[in-house]
Amino acid sequence: MNNQGLMTDGREVAAWLERIAEASATSDGVTRLPWTEEHRAALAHIASWMRDMGLEVSLDAAGTLIGASPNPEGKPVLLIGSHQDSVPSGGRFDGIMGIAIGCAAAGALRDRIANLPFALEVLAFADEEGVRFPTALIGPRALAGRLDPAALEMIDQKGETMNSAMAAFGVDTDQTLQIARRSQTVVGYLEAHIEQGPVLEDLDLPVAAVSAICGISRYEVIITGVTGHAGTVPMTGRHDALVAASRIISHVSEAASSSDVRATVGTISVKPGAVNAIPAEIRFSLEIRAAIDDTRQKFEDTILNRGRDLCNAHGCDFTARRTYVQFATTCDPKLTEALLAAIRECGLTAEAIPSGATHDASAMADLSPVSMLFVRCRGGVSHRPDEYASAKDMD
Amino acid sequence: MNNQGLMTDGREVAAWLERIAEASATSDGVTRLPWTEEHRAALAHIASWMRDMGLEVSLDAAGTLIGASPNPEGKPVLLIGSHQDSVPSGGRFDGIMGIAIGCAAAGALRDRIANLPFALEVLAFADEEGVRFPTALIGPRALAGRLDPAALEMIDQKGETMNSAMAAFGVDTDQTLQIARRSQTVVGYLEAHIEQGPVLEDLDLPVAAVSAICGISRYEVIITGVTGHAGTVPMTGRHDALVAASRIISHVSEAASSSDVRATVGTISVKPGAVNAIPAEIRFSLEIRAAIDDTRQKFEDTILNRGRDLCNAHGCDFTARRTYVQFATTCDPKLTEALLAAIRECGLTAEAIPSGATHDASAMADLSPVSMLFVRCRGGVSHRPDEYASAKDMD
Repeated sequence: MNNQGLMTDGREVAAWLERIAEASATSDGVTRLPWTEEHRAALAHIASWMRDMGLEVSLDAAGTLIGASPNPEGKPVLLIGSHQDSVPSGGRFDGIMGIAIGCAAAGALRDRIANLPFALEVLAFADEEGVRFPTALIGPRALAGRLDPAALEMIDQKGETMNSAMAAFGVDTDQTLQIARRSQTVVGYLEAHIEQGPVLEDLDLPVAAVSAICGISRYEVIITGVTGHAGTVPMTGRHDALVAASRIISHVSEAASSSDVRATVGTISVKPGAVNAIPAEIRFSLEIRAAIDDTRQKFEDTILNRGRDLCNAHGCDFTARRTYVQFATTCDPKLTEALLAAIRECGLTAEAIPSGATHDASAMADLSPVSMLFVRCRGGVSHRPDEYASAKDMD
Repeated sequence: MNNQGLMTDGREVAAWLERIAEASATSDGVTRLPWTEEHRAALAHIASWMRDMGLEVSLDAAGTLIGASPNPEGKPVLLIGSHQDSVPSGGRFDGIMGIAIGCAAAGALRDRIANLPFALEVLAFADEEGVRFPTALIGPRALAGRLDPAALEMIDQKGETMNSAMAAFGVDTDQTLQIARRSQTVVGYLEAHIEQGPVLEDLDLPVAAVSAICGISRYEVIITGVTGHAGTVPMTGRHDALVAASRIISHVSEAASSSDVRATVGTISVKPGAVNAIPAEIRFSLEIRAAIDDTRQKFEDTILNRGRDLCNAHGCDFTARRTYVQFATTCDPKLTEALLAAIRECGLTAEAIPSGATHDASAMADLSPVSMLFVRCRGGVSHRPDEYASAKDMD
């Protein structure tokens, strides 16, 4: 409850986030998966914030809670939103903070909104993390008309379909594919989110605009060598798949450190996988992110060629299969310049930095211009119970 | 059946091995685990070879089939042996070839043995591979008086103890710990075995004496870094445990290639193990073998220090725990010189090379001087259905 009327400050947002964190399925951090009782409890909190800010509350057919300013003239709408869900044992800020700040912004504009050339909607998307179902971003995709009907048929670990979970939650799933907005009706989409990285802390800045949301490529790399007895096969003449993989992984890290990409090998497995057997096959994941798609593609080409060469030098075979690609989203220059101007008005240095993580804004970019505001988070930590953004920074 | 009386040639040994390979639990290569019906069938074959060579056959209390030349005077005994068992889907030569060649040698000495200062026993040990029970070398350890009673209580995957499996096979397990020989009664132990490596093929030699059986150290290495979001954490400042591990694994391979050791990383695992998470923890096995214990120990010290340095450079922690050690066995110089002389008598270049693999001879060294003869095997391949030693080489 905002007792001061219009202006909700960072301390109040922090108090909101403290209370809504109680809607968690675990005591170890916040666990709030979509279409659960915790989701329902969170929406009750969010609906009360929205109503307190003078917004009309409704749930759309993709499970997005919408708080809309009065709009009798049907003006085009400025959307502000983020996601309500968390990863398992996640933090109190990722996603939900952007909804709370959106509500606070709506409160600040409450008396002026009727005189502005746009109306306002605050959006609380159901599922950005993609933890429960092997898909994500259902809310923004539905609004952008880019929702794959197959997403509704995906099943969670208990075998329940998304469709069934949504319907049980009270969503009209017959309409889920029918709620796409026309782009003329939308001015733009704004999202505030914790940075989830250490860049703002390193720059000693509380907030920054986002220049672009990085594109992502993922590969499954398979290196095939020849196994043999670890005691009897001399070092020279071995075709050790793990030694070849090690040289590639070292090289990926070195090459990425001197490029504008982030490259990570996050999984690795070995066959036959015995203490006394030379590795015959290594599989690892390779993920590459960059704010500029061309930079990413060039890096991929270089790394794959180098991987082949390193494998050849070890008498191993190299194959790489691209398993996922997501193109970069450039934030709208006009909206971003407006954000930067607002940051400067607060007496702060205004920077625009790329986002390495994907956000609801990535999917909303198919509908309208997007812009994002990053809020500094302690230690760059996210997806953990100790995730923290200060009240002052949120203010 | 040896129809020619005394001399059994390589072709006949090959025919024996062909027939005994039928005592297999799988059609894909030879699977002959200890204390099974296949073991029993194999001993029936071996017993007939022994009897044909004029040996008296008995089964000792560790399940070793013994073929003894007549020894009314109680002369000290020259032992020749190897193991009957195979790995799952293994080959037709590993182990069993040494028994067959031992029988052939007994046949060749049959008419002269009474005039020699020693008697002869051919030994067919039950279990060298250690596949069924988490222990091995029960036969030679019992003869050397080094059998740990706990070995008899170890259980296989079905929960059966070694003791129970042996008793069901017909072994007098009450006596298993009582059959240690006195070293004065044993002249030495000889073992012929396929090389299981490519060295003889590279040297273009059919056989070689073995200089030593390598010592072995095994470590579990744990590298601890800091996880983080693969998209949001910049490359600089990452503490990526897999990148640190990769540099160590590359270094192990390089350093071993310029030393008299064989070093292998055969297993590796990663936590958290997600395509978009920076690795926080890597565990890998490190096995180091060398013919000289001091060489191995110095290599271990160097590698562990270097591992620590490389981890420090990546902001990661390094721990290494030694999980296993087996000291090197030097083959007896006199017996080995006699073997080398015999090889020269055949008109061949006589070389002594180290054995990277462990053999029954490693355990027999606790009882008596040991010596080994390696037989070239195609491609250095062993523990596989296509394992092959030619009749000519065995001859």
